[in-house]
Amino acid sequence: MQDALLALTRYWTDRGCIVVQPYNTEVGAGTLNPATVLRVLGPEPWRVSYVEPSVRPDDARYGENPNRLQTHTQFQVILKPDPGDPQELYLGSLEALGIDVRAHDVRFVEDNWASPALGAWGLGWEVWLDGLEITQFTYFQQAGGMSLDPVSVEITYGIERIMMALQGVSHFKDIAYAPGISYGEAFGQSEYEMSRYYLDDADVEANKRLFEEYAAEARRMLDARLPVPAHNYVLKCSHTFNVLDARGAISTTERARAFARMRGLAREVAQLWAARREELGHPLGLVEPAAPATAPTGFATVDQPRTLLFEIGTEELPPAEVTRTVEAVREAVAAKLGATRLAHGAVQAHGTPRRVVVLVPDVAPREPDAERTVRGPRVSAAFGADGEPTKAALGFARGQGVDVAALGRVTENGVEHVALVRTDVGRGAVEVLSGLLAEVVGELRAEKNMRWNDPKLSFTRPIRWLLALLGDTPVPVAVSALASGAVTRVHRTAAEPVVEVPGADGYLDFLAGHGITADADRRRAEIVRRAEELAASVGGVVDFDGVLDEVTNLVERPTPILGSFSADYLELPAQILTTVMRKHQRYLPVRSADGALLPHFVAVANGAVDEDLVRAGNEAVLRARYEDAAFFWRADLRTPLERMKAGLEKLTFADKLGSMADRAGRIAALAGRLAEVVGAADDTLRRAGELAKFDLGSQMVIELSSLAGVMAREYALRAGEMPEVAQALYEMELPRSAGDALPGSTAGALLSLADRFDLLAGLFGIGANPTGSSDPFGLRRAALGAVSVLRAFPELREITLSRALELAARDLAVPREALEAAREFAVRRYEQQLLDAGHDHRHVNAVLPLADAPAVADETLAELVALADDEGFTALVAALQRVRRIVPAGTAGEYDPGALREPAELALHEAFAAVPRGTTGLAAFVTAASGLTGPVNTFFDEVLVMAEEPGLRAARLGLLAAIRDLAAPVLAWQELPS
Amino acid sequence: MQDALLALTRYWTDRGCIVVQPYNTEVGAGTLNPATVLRVLGPEPWRVSYVEPSVRPDDARYGENPNRLQTHTQFQVILKPDPGDPQELYLGSLEALGIDVRAHDVRFVEDNWASPALGAWGLGWEVWLDGLEITQFTYFQQAGGMSLDPVSVEITYGIERIMMALQGVSHFKDIAYAPGISYGEAFGQSEYEMSRYYLDDADVEANKRLFEEYAAEARRMLDARLPVPAHNYVLKCSHTFNVLDARGAISTTERARAFARMRGLAREVAQLWAARREELGHPLGLVEPAAPATAPTGFATVDQPRTLLFEIGTEELPPAEVTRTVEAVREAVAAKLGATRLAHGAVQAHGTPRRVVVLVPDVAPREPDAERTVRGPRVSAAFGADGEPTKAALGFARGQGVDVAALGRVTENGVEHVALVRTDVGRGAVEVLSGLLAEVVGELRAEKNMRWNDPKLSFTRPIRWLLALLGDTPVPVAVSALASGAVTRVHRTAAEPVVEVPGADGYLDFLAGHGITADADRRRAEIVRRAEELAASVGGVVDFDGVLDEVTNLVERPTPILGSFSADYLELPAQILTTVMRKHQRYLPVRSADGALLPHFVAVANGAVDEDLVRAGNEAVLRARYEDAAFFWRADLRTPLERMKAGLEKLTFADKLGSMADRAGRIAALAGRLAEVVGAADDTLRRAGELAKFDLGSQMVIELSSLAGVMAREYALRAGEMPEVAQALYEMELPRSAGDALPGSTAGALLSLADRFDLLAGLFGIGANPTGSSDPFGLRRAALGAVSVLRAFPELREITLSRALELAARDLAVPREALEAAREFAVRRYEQQLLDAGHDHRHVNAVLPLADAPAVADETLAELVALADDEGFTALVAALQRVRRIVPAGTAGEYDPGALREPAELALHEAFAAVPRGTTGLAAFVTAASGLTGPVNTFFDEVLVMAEEPGLRAARLGLLAAIRDLAAPVLAWQELPS
Repeated sequence: MQDALLALTRYWTDRGCIVVQPYNTEVGAGTLNPATVLRVLGPEPWRVSYVEPSVRPDDARYGENPNRLQTHTQFQVILKPDPGDPQELYLGSLEALGIDVRAHDVRFVEDNWASPALGAWGLGWEVWLDGLEITQFTYFQQAGGMSLDPVSVEITYGIERIMMALQGVSHFKDIAYAPGISYGEAFGQSEYEMSRYYLDDADVEANKRLFEEYAAEARRMLDARLPVPAHNYVLKCSHTFNVLDARGAISTTERARAFARMRGLAREVAQLWAARREELGHPLGLVEPAAPATAPTGFATVDQPRTLLFEIGTEELPPAEVTRTVEAVREAVAAKLGATRLAHGAVQAHGTPRRVVVLVPDVAPREPDAERTVRGPRVSAAFGADGEPTKAALGFARGQGVDVAALGRVTENGVEHVALVRTDVGRGAVEVLSGLLAEVVGELRAEKNMRWNDPKLSFTRPIRWLLALLGDTPVPVAVSALASGAVTRVHRTAAEPVVEVPGADGYLDFLAGHGITADADRRRAEIVRRAEELAASVGGVVDFDGVLDEVTNLVERPTPILGSFSADYLELPAQILTTVMRKHQRYLPVRSADGALLPHFVAVANGAVDEDLVRAGNEAVLRARYEDAAFFWRADLRTPLERMKAGLEKLTFADKLGSMADRAGRIAALAGRLAEVVGAADDTLRRAGELAKFDLGSQMVIELSSLAGVMAREYALRAGEMPEVAQALYEMELPRSAGDALPGSTAGALLSLADRFDLLAGLFGIGANPTGSSDPFGLRRAALGAVSVLRAFPELREITLSRALELAARDLAVPREALEAAREFAVRRYEQQLLDAGHDHRHVNAVLPLADAPAVADETLAELVALADDEGFTALVAALQRVRRIVPAGTAGEYDPGALREPAELALHEAFAAVPRGTTGLAAFVTAASGLTGPVNTFFDEVLVMAEEPGLRAARLGLLAAIRDLAAPVLAWQELPS
Repeated sequence: MQDALLALTRYWTDRGCIVVQPYNTEVGAGTLNPATVLRVLGPEPWRVSYVEPSVRPDDARYGENPNRLQTHTQFQVILKPDPGDPQELYLGSLEALGIDVRAHDVRFVEDNWASPALGAWGLGWEVWLDGLEITQFTYFQQAGGMSLDPVSVEITYGIERIMMALQGVSHFKDIAYAPGISYGEAFGQSEYEMSRYYLDDADVEANKRLFEEYAAEARRMLDARLPVPAHNYVLKCSHTFNVLDARGAISTTERARAFARMRGLAREVAQLWAARREELGHPLGLVEPAAPATAPTGFATVDQPRTLLFEIGTEELPPAEVTRTVEAVREAVAAKLGATRLAHGAVQAHGTPRRVVVLVPDVAPREPDAERTVRGPRVSAAFGADGEPTKAALGFARGQGVDVAALGRVTENGVEHVALVRTDVGRGAVEVLSGLLAEVVGELRAEKNMRWNDPKLSFTRPIRWLLALLGDTPVPVAVSALASGAVTRVHRTAAEPVVEVPGADGYLDFLAGHGITADADRRRAEIVRRAEELAASVGGVVDFDGVLDEVTNLVERPTPILGSFSADYLELPAQILTTVMRKHQRYLPVRSADGALLPHFVAVANGAVDEDLVRAGNEAVLRARYEDAAFFWRADLRTPLERMKAGLEKLTFADKLGSMADRAGRIAALAGRLAEVVGAADDTLRRAGELAKFDLGSQMVIELSSLAGVMAREYALRAGEMPEVAQALYEMELPRSAGDALPGSTAGALLSLADRFDLLAGLFGIGANPTGSSDPFGLRRAALGAVSVLRAFPELREITLSRALELAARDLAVPREALEAAREFAVRRYEQQLLDAGHDHRHVNAVLPLADAPAVADETLAELVALADDEGFTALVAALQRVRRIVPAGTAGEYDPGALREPAELALHEAFAAVPRGTTGLAAFVTAASGLTGPVNTFFDEVLVMAEEPGLRAARLGLLAAIRDLAAPVLAWQELPS
């Protein structure tokens, strides 16, 4: 292991990194060393690498857990600015470690990083080696609340992990640390003893006092304008906080206060550091921004229609962005081409994680010329009485650069003007495309965009190359620092990673020849076909649920590989196993014909690899993860539910909203209140409420949060709880996403609703409404879930959105407007559900006023759909619309029947009086009110509503308003066509 | 610089060291990392190397001082057990750093290490590279109060120093840390800001509280039996203490308490660690002790007298031990040879730092045979009446293994015994020498002895080889793990560092041929000759004072090199310059004919080196030191004397005796009291008392403590004090050693006395009497100094030892016996002075009762010497002796003259009455009492003292007693021959 550290150090120093020493106070990560967290600030260049023993008291396990240490070893690299090829440099470092990157499956899998405590975030990947996360690779975008310019590349290697994989050992203690000495021999005692300190023996009060002392010194140092010692004390604060946390000694309020304090200090440190560096005149100099690419000056010509090939080469895009970007680029190219006069075939686009390929066949060699008439002054003003051109005409001709004699005439709106017909000469295709494609690149945007070393571009990941060919003619595209060429980049591990492209035609085949399947559909098909073959070889079928799309966009050429794991692990609940496979490893589970899991999986590697090697690697990773899971499973089974539940005290929920225990308490109370509303309170609900969320305190869920609910059911059953209680606890977490299963029991439904309304009321109450794409607490999902449950349980219709939110707000101080906003937010989700389901938007709008009880709105909508083509209904709607239109807003639905005098109005009065009151639902109302249609129409035909006599007019309007008011609660009639 | 760290890491890992990371809390030295201070304990093997940024708040200088940093970089190596060739390994590491050890002058200069706070000590060297200390090299003997077995070798490189030398820069900030980035650029801001924290901004009260918290946690962890976290908190204690110290916030009592506390904790940590490792079954295994060398079984023979060559090869001996060891070995060989029957010539011995060479010419080939008579029973008991041998005779014969018939007879003391004459066959010379030389090695001891990897030997430094040849015949010598051979080791940098030795004859020439001058006298002569030549070349003469002997024993072949320094530094007081040259660098100053310093020096390198390179290196070192000194000089000149004096508050003097400021106060008060005794109080004394010791607070004296007094005078003069005051302050420190100059002024003498009597009274008062060779506070020197001053100032004779000590004790609680012990201690020193000066021990004894006033005793002694051959005096002495002898002790000197009757006794009475009373001094007394000689003698001739009549007897005895008492105060007459 020490050789590995030396090899990495040597590798990075050879690439211009300076080496610093680990920080001499405890830090939780290499990022916290001032060599990262301070040096990434400001405009000075910085390249550094160092080892950082990272202390995480919470990970203390007495040295027993094979993968978890209170002090693990990070190797940290900072490249500032981004050198343009950090991934390639990184792969080189793996080779320096002796890893054959050609034989292994090395991949960059989206993983963004954020530390709100540091006011820092970045975009990047975790790097996988045969499925094992060995490195965090991040483009730092912000630190200390400050945007970083230039951006730094941060590479953090997890050394113990890499060593365990390289040495093929399954416990960190077995790592050969140095010749003849194992990791356990070198550090085992320290691991045990420091675990003891962190978990059992640290003095809580002493550490609390230390925290205060450190925070106070940090404060004083900030006031003294000394960021370095201030940072030192912030780190000591942080470590002390972690110690207290590991000791289980941090209450919710303490946690919130401590975090706020550390965050504030860290930001001040960052700002002060940046300010001080500026005062010092930036001793390390300034980063030179990358030079803009030279704008093209001349353009080649082509003489016949050709295929356009345009490729945007990137670093690995997030899988979801691959599809989105392909579509966006296709549309952009099509739209921009459409705005030119260049003839062309249909625009096709394809994509992999590393490229978007656009192919446009039959692009004409040039735009046709076009004529354009330029209008001058009126003829009457252009020529004097003598027929000589006036100053106006002369001026116009001069402005157009022609002799006045060359002017013609044109008549517009009957007025004759002098005019000039000009010919716009069509541009060559290369010229047209050059500008157009540059715009496409410059306008690329994703959900989350980042910066790298390019001074102007911003996209989800760095754009590293452009390839543009019209047939075999290069199209020069220059955008910011990028200039296109006639080369592409194939697999980084290829013998020649950069290859010349002979021409646009057959480019997909050309890529295929280099081991790249640019078409996502083909990749998906390849995966399905091969995975099925592999599964069949062990008598199973592949469970493609969930990860196929993602996997398709994680590779440029899929290489499905069948792996196996010990059947012993099948003792664990299947959902644990599949969750680990899908969520953590993106493996496809293999099931027998009856759906039972088989001890196999299909991993999808990228390109040509040594399959045995990669299989073994992936199997080892899965084994370690299952071993972990089994460890948690067994540990949890030994833990009483109440103890797990007590653990929720340590989990902060949100500032001002207390701990997760507080939240669980509120959910239980709210579920009880909701049950009272519908008379459904029972022992099942009560017991489930007591246990609500207890599994968040289990080791398994702490580790695999997506198993919340699943584990609650498992553990509750095994702890001897009633099956109904266990099921209710499970259902409480449903639905976990759009389209997920819904609760089946009333108790489950009530808990699910309570969970979601507590979330909505609480977070709207503290102003944490979702904004734009940011929805950190998953409020959209919560609102959708609540609505879905209410729709699925019409018997709970008394639980309206308003009522539920109001009851939820009882234990919280929520302003009325916030509650109204939450209700409105939920209604909008309901509306979207209906529209997504394909309902006519007019129907949707018509029932939306009923959405406070979505089940009621649903029923009305169903009746509306059924009635839609009914003539009587249509007529009634039309009649009611006439009524609505004529009655001014604010008119009360009251009238003096004695004031009426015309027969038609008296008939209407009678018909109205005859309508049975108190019907429920649209259909019943329509039946009841159908007698109004005729009288209404007759009334309008025969009576002038706006009588001059005020009393009469008031009575007529009052009658109509009363009809309006009778119909109004049933439907938003005005939304229907009439 | 980072490349250097990597090169060292690589070098040591290639030699089996594991690499660990710097410790993640602040440490003052690599030694404190648990990878050293804990791992050296116990029997497990351990080899480690690591970088350790060592934080010393006290060295904080805002990054301004070119050589001093609050955080400097140590590279630490631990080899446990001693591999047998650690020096050679170390030299290899220098080569790995790119240092050409053949061209440079690399030397191991005695420097022992002790950390009472850690209960740790070791023996070793500082390693010099062209005069620059670049490494501390220590054989760890004890840690945590525990003896280490096996012993560890600790190598600590000072990286910034090495880099400055290698890169030829004169400020640490200018070190090229990595390509394109300097040390200052990388760490300058941190250096400044952390200096600010340590020196100015650290919150004192907060850090005091932190200290308490840390100590309490350490205590708790010890109680929990967790040495690792306990050690962690001890380190935090230590750092916090250092912060407080740098802030000047530690009072004397706090310091003492803190040290005691940390020491106690550190020892407990060490013991607990060792115990825990034992409980864990010593996971790293046990060190195998070095196998004992095979004992020789057969011995070669030689056929004629040959020269014996015996060489004991060591690692560099301390210079003082070279001479001592050569002599000891010579004596041992001579004594042991003398105890054999082997004929041999005179034993010669020579030595260098690395070898003791014994040559004995004409060693006979073997011992002659020898006859030996074994005495049996008396003949009378050996044979019965019948002449047959008795059981006794038979038993004797059987015991001797001979037939009874073979017994002869021998007469002893006139009694005839049976006897057997046995022949002891002489052993061959090789056999004799084999055993004898092994004993010599096994019995080698020095002042301070250490252990290394040898299971049994103990000496001042490791013994690494033995060479033993009789002529050209190898003499096998086996002692512990060492076996002799026929090879020696020459310069480690020689092409062949190990060479075969053809034979004993001409060995010194053989060594000379390999560049080694084994004879110290020749080395000294070479140095003198060449140094004088070099000095003459710049018109100067060498000042050999002080270091010549040391330098002679620091090299195996001296290569004097002339170096120069900028004449600008001559502005500094010469004593600073020479102190640096001699004490720190062992250079010989060069002076002009009039004694003024010239800007040159002579350094003495070892063996053949690149003289230009070595000159340049030494010049750079001296420049840096002078630059430092100049920095201190200028800083001190800007500091008011009172401020320096205030700095004494921070210097602990000794437990229970307060700070140095307390001591200075006591000295001033005592000097005042002593002045009153002799009526010498004046303004000079008063002012000098106020300033007493102020220069201990100057940067210069903190750095160069031997300049105490010198700097006081310099700074006082420059601060405008009266020259007499400045001189008194200087003289206060005199004499600094035996033979040093004494004060010239009364004020100086009084201060000097006060200084020394305060020390004696104080330390005897707290029981810190010197024991054996241990005299950490220099009490011997103090007593000698006080006596010397009193002897030099007879006018101060009223200041007796008793009186001075009693006055000194006024500000201290000193038990009476302690004062008496101190007085006695001083008297003994005086006695030794007199004896060393060659005085007849009887004379010395005779005046010793007067030594409470040494000047008085001196005068008496002088008179005694003058009178010694005087007949009258001799007669008087004899007469007085007769008187003394006859008078029983306890007889009062009173008598009734009326009881006397004999003429002789009446004559004596009259003569006694005629002796003038009140004389001073011996000579006056002798003159006065000379009239007694005759009457005394006559009295004894004619009078029977012991008359039967009691009254008469009493009167006679009373008369004699009165004479005795009259003479007694003058001299201890009984000590004189009579």
